[in-house]
Amino acid sequence: MDREIRAVHVGLGPMGLRVVQHVLAERKGIRYVGAVDVDPRLEGKDLGEIAGLASPAGVKVTGDASAVFEQTRPDIAIYTTVSPLKAFLPQTEVALRNGVNVISTCEELAFPSFVDADMTSRYDELCKLHGVSMLGTGINPGFLMDLRASLLSAACTDVQRIEITRRMDATPRRQPFQKKIGAGMDADEYRKAIESGAITGHVGLEMSICLIADALGWELEEVRVTGPEPVVAEKQVSSEYFTVARGQVKGTEQEAIGIVGGESKIRLSFSAFLGATPSFDEVVIVGTPEVRARVSPCWHGDYGTVAMSVNLIPAVINARPGLLTINDIVPVSFKAGNLGGFVAQGA
Amino acid sequence: MDREIRAVHVGLGPMGLRVVQHVLAERKGIRYVGAVDVDPRLEGKDLGEIAGLASPAGVKVTGDASAVFEQTRPDIAIYTTVSPLKAFLPQTEVALRNGVNVISTCEELAFPSFVDADMTSRYDELCKLHGVSMLGTGINPGFLMDLRASLLSAACTDVQRIEITRRMDATPRRQPFQKKIGAGMDADEYRKAIESGAITGHVGLEMSICLIADALGWELEEVRVTGPEPVVAEKQVSSEYFTVARGQVKGTEQEAIGIVGGESKIRLSFSAFLGATPSFDEVVIVGTPEVRARVSPCWHGDYGTVAMSVNLIPAVINARPGLLTINDIVPVSFKAGNLGGFVAQGA
Repeated sequence: MDREIRAVHVGLGPMGLRVVQHVLAERKGIRYVGAVDVDPRLEGKDLGEIAGLASPAGVKVTGDASAVFEQTRPDIAIYTTVSPLKAFLPQTEVALRNGVNVISTCEELAFPSFVDADMTSRYDELCKLHGVSMLGTGINPGFLMDLRASLLSAACTDVQRIEITRRMDATPRRQPFQKKIGAGMDADEYRKAIESGAITGHVGLEMSICLIADALGWELEEVRVTGPEPVVAEKQVSSEYFTVARGQVKGTEQEAIGIVGGESKIRLSFSAFLGATPSFDEVVIVGTPEVRARVSPCWHGDYGTVAMSVNLIPAVINARPGLLTINDIVPVSFKAGNLGGFVAQGA
Repeated sequence: MDREIRAVHVGLGPMGLRVVQHVLAERKGIRYVGAVDVDPRLEGKDLGEIAGLASPAGVKVTGDASAVFEQTRPDIAIYTTVSPLKAFLPQTEVALRNGVNVISTCEELAFPSFVDADMTSRYDELCKLHGVSMLGTGINPGFLMDLRASLLSAACTDVQRIEITRRMDATPRRQPFQKKIGAGMDADEYRKAIESGAITGHVGLEMSICLIADALGWELEEVRVTGPEPVVAEKQVSSEYFTVARGQVKGTEQEAIGIVGGESKIRLSFSAFLGATPSFDEVVIVGTPEVRARVSPCWHGDYGTVAMSVNLIPAVINARPGLLTINDIVPVSFKAGNLGGFVAQGA
């Protein structure tokens, strides 16, 4: 019997509010029964009001996650809180112990065992103990630079190497994003901002490398990440907010490589800069057949992450218990080695 | 415990032999323990020999499927036999009754309930009774014009319409393929060949429409298929085998439309002709965000179908029992309506 999915939202920062707006205004079949945030200023406010919607949601925000889960026993908790796994997982205990499935945009949750295998194992056990599933999802990591390539590889009889490029044009993006990628800075100034942590790069390339290797059955020896590095303008380029002179920084780039059997088998290249036209998301599979798959213009990341964290909810609810990755949900890819992924039943 | 997958192959026509060659020569972790074909000339011959390989496979071909399944009890049977569902399903009974999972390139098996809902239901029950899964797979239907689009839609917050184009360049393909698409014929001659059944079009556009609608939760009111129609050369074009004068047929095209709520929500366009450069496989999602995803040159279909029918084997073995579609294996897509796909457990 199909019925409405009952959800609790945890974390009402910018990404959380985007998800809440989407669910409240545009989705059927899912209903919020609770909302949690640590900010005391939100306590008691209506979720629809916080999300800037015209009509109230009939759900009050609280800081008391435990009470919400105990009283509402939802099907799913949507967490949009923090990126680091070690800060994230303890937040979910209250959901898991109340038998609530968890979906989250936490980037490191996309492939948690790379970050902390012991902690991942403990939370996997906790999920199983309470019969619930937990998944980290999003557009990147979680889709553009991993799942999409793994799925394409399923129609290949051989895969030698995978190369993925995400090249974003920052020109139409909001001012804070352009600032974050260093637009208008001098290269030295940019490097200092990276060193000091004032500017941070894209989080998740390591997760994407791990997801691809795991899907294909490649044993990763090493994951190397370089950058963020400045992309310097060769000629003047400008946006609504910045004018970047020749020689100044127009954006940022990062690269990640996955080493398997001593070879660079997976290469991810991420860049975002002003004037990056055409922008694109490209997957190249060096194999049989050779595959060149390009989404252009590049996928809008914010829509993508909101979409994934809602569209995947039924799959998470129906999945086997455990701390899962997207490869558990989508077991379709080229299988190197021994057709990895087959576990003999009762063998 | 991971161990080798034990497989029986049923049907040693051109596609079957391609799969067999690939498995024997290029795959680890899977081993043939039996091979079945109705052709008495193949009886007793070695599978490796028939596949044209240098070394024998140590597996003799037989016409007695029942004996093979009873004696070998494999994990999976790979069927590459016929396209029509009603001819195909009875062939599988001997596998199902012996507790053997089935994967097949039978085009109509990709979405069997569209062809015959009663028969699909009966075989679904039979699968469940014997605790096995059965899946129809391939590149098209099964991947290029359905699964790939459904997966891309998962990163959309809204999908209004999906348009998919497969445009194949026939120039580098084998002579029989070029002949099959009517290269060098007059348009009248081509139309007569279609009417008489001497030329047949691509099978499976209806299945792809059904798969997309099912994945997204769109209720299909009608599936309309047009063609095959001749693609007439506007100027002379030639290949190794044919020279097509202006006004003659250089290839073929077909179209299929899925009607949902009175609107054309899914449109598939398939064409194959000489000089189709660039060739491509394109998915356009009219939604949020707009997505234009293009694989170019177009995917080589033969590799793709071989790949899918082997790479999907672990997923079929591990899947829940039943007559499944690829949407059961990959439950990831935009969910229109009520987040369809969630079935309340114990509700």
